[in-house]
Amino acid sequence: MTEELITLNHGSGGRAMARLIEEIFIHHFNADSNNTELAKKNDAARLNVQTSHIVTTIDAHVISPLFFPGGDIGSLAVHGTINDLSMAGARPLALTAAFILEEGFKISTLKSLVKSMALAAKEAGVNIVSGDTKVVEKGKGDGVFITTSGVGLCDHDVSLGAEQIKVGDKIILSGSIGDHGIAVMSAREGLQFDTALLSDSCALNDLVDNMMQHFKHAIHCMRDPTRGGIASALNELSEQADKGFRIYEAAIPLKESVRAACELLGLDPAYIANEGKLVCFVAEEQAEALLAKMRKHPHGRDAAIIGEVLAEPGVQLQTTLGTRRRLEMLSGEALPRIC
Amino acid sequence: MTEELITLNHGSGGRAMARLIEEIFIHHFNADSNNTELAKKNDAARLNVQTSHIVTTIDAHVISPLFFPGGDIGSLAVHGTINDLSMAGARPLALTAAFILEEGFKISTLKSLVKSMALAAKEAGVNIVSGDTKVVEKGKGDGVFITTSGVGLCDHDVSLGAEQIKVGDKIILSGSIGDHGIAVMSAREGLQFDTALLSDSCALNDLVDNMMQHFKHAIHCMRDPTRGGIASALNELSEQADKGFRIYEAAIPLKESVRAACELLGLDPAYIANEGKLVCFVAEEQAEALLAKMRKHPHGRDAAIIGEVLAEPGVQLQTTLGTRRRLEMLSGEALPRIC
Repeated sequence: MTEELITLNHGSGGRAMARLIEEIFIHHFNADSNNTELAKKNDAARLNVQTSHIVTTIDAHVISPLFFPGGDIGSLAVHGTINDLSMAGARPLALTAAFILEEGFKISTLKSLVKSMALAAKEAGVNIVSGDTKVVEKGKGDGVFITTSGVGLCDHDVSLGAEQIKVGDKIILSGSIGDHGIAVMSAREGLQFDTALLSDSCALNDLVDNMMQHFKHAIHCMRDPTRGGIASALNELSEQADKGFRIYEAAIPLKESVRAACELLGLDPAYIANEGKLVCFVAEEQAEALLAKMRKHPHGRDAAIIGEVLAEPGVQLQTTLGTRRRLEMLSGEALPRIC
Repeated sequence: MTEELITLNHGSGGRAMARLIEEIFIHHFNADSNNTELAKKNDAARLNVQTSHIVTTIDAHVISPLFFPGGDIGSLAVHGTINDLSMAGARPLALTAAFILEEGFKISTLKSLVKSMALAAKEAGVNIVSGDTKVVEKGKGDGVFITTSGVGLCDHDVSLGAEQIKVGDKIILSGSIGDHGIAVMSAREGLQFDTALLSDSCALNDLVDNMMQHFKHAIHCMRDPTRGGIASALNELSEQADKGFRIYEAAIPLKESVRAACELLGLDPAYIANEGKLVCFVAEEQAEALLAKMRKHPHGRDAAIIGEVLAEPGVQLQTTLGTRRRLEMLSGEALPRIC
């Protein structure tokens, strides 16, 4: 059987594109036929909402390789956008997806990725309601890039953001750091480790729903520490909040396998990307109760209080040796195409 | 002065990326400081809405060359997504934008494109409220790809779509066809024509606002005939509506310069992309009044009734010679990367 490949015709707006959309995208994204907006094949989807606040976001995904231990660019594209909505305190309402395909890309690979997206969306309880497909000539892309955008609904009395962070707030991290970046690096470099390293890529909306149920006024800010790792996320938030954070190195959950791999690769886990973790700033008096709640959820099992908010700016790391150093923002050697 | 170029570091989530976002994206997309959600630098934007219906859409833009007579990939990315919202009868509320940059891309070029997006968004009265930036290695992209998504608000009593098209409806086209595709082809091939050929790329939301004001119940469906041209758009709608269309070739507005260029290039203008036109299906008795209204708007000046809806499926072209032929969907030679 010859392998079907993407041709420029698949992007031309004609029959070939119509078939691709019908047989791959609509087929999988509407598998249980409840995604009526997608099935209508309009260029935009109409959604009914009962709210006065919506949240919207967009994320381009260019990860290499396309498949990695624990996920692929498809599931990652769904998780990434859901998590951005969740971090704003919104419940994901719908996703849209745009594909930039390289001529010669295997249609069977596209199908696998679309299936993976459909599964990830179904698990998170969200529909992919609209999409777009473009094709570029061989050598002008890299297989597939997937951009996802999302719309979420927000309760009128929820207002999360760096500007809400208060001195004295506790900082909770939902689990171990570096899993995603190290899993991708090991796949990219063909490294073998004794222990299997899996990406933590997952949708955090259910964990956040649980957290918001009882603590929506105690939680001041959430952020998923993706590219640039927890160090960059904390530095960004510190700048935006104009406050400082004291972080206890010993309190940061880190898998032994990830620690060992980082040592081998000469990487600092604080700068490695995560795709299924969040940091959360919570009023001090509610921190222990929230932590207990998070630990009952599969995606928060290893949650820990890792620090607290101070008045003076900057992110300060209290090391396991008892010394203090500034945890700087990433400013150099990148791990390119990690998401 | 050395030319600043995009490096992989610009996509790493660290300092370089933060500077790029601050100095280029936020600087231009928030030029008049009323785009407070973007300025907050969260990963998602929160919007207040007073409606029960929202519309969302996404479009990837991979046009080559990046600059063409009458526009560039930046303005096109804004217009394209606004128009998809407008075609659903929604007023654009906000846009998001994701950039996939190739290592080595000139930062000055990026700046021009971002400025052009900011201007296009301002002219259309919409903010770009959230975004994302990724960088791929040299040779794995093509300068820049821009994906835009949008959210629009829809009146509860508006319900446009192919399924609303009725036998007897008149088909109105808002202006001349083929302008965009031919302008891009001429730029790509370095062709010189006697007359300047300009893309029709523009935002149609104001024209649609005007149309919907008095005719929102008479208009049954709108579509912008982009990739694949008017022939593909009409065939798609005919299939979705399960109705037929009779189109009068002589009634289709076509600029003499575009006709001549098509002849020279061996192209059929019915299959050439448009980026500032719409086809509209309207109740017969309101067609003339709507046409008169459209002609008063700069983007509808050359509007014309080009046909009507029949019961039997298929798109039938009544030629200027008096013969009839089926206007088929595009199924072959593409004009790649036209949008």
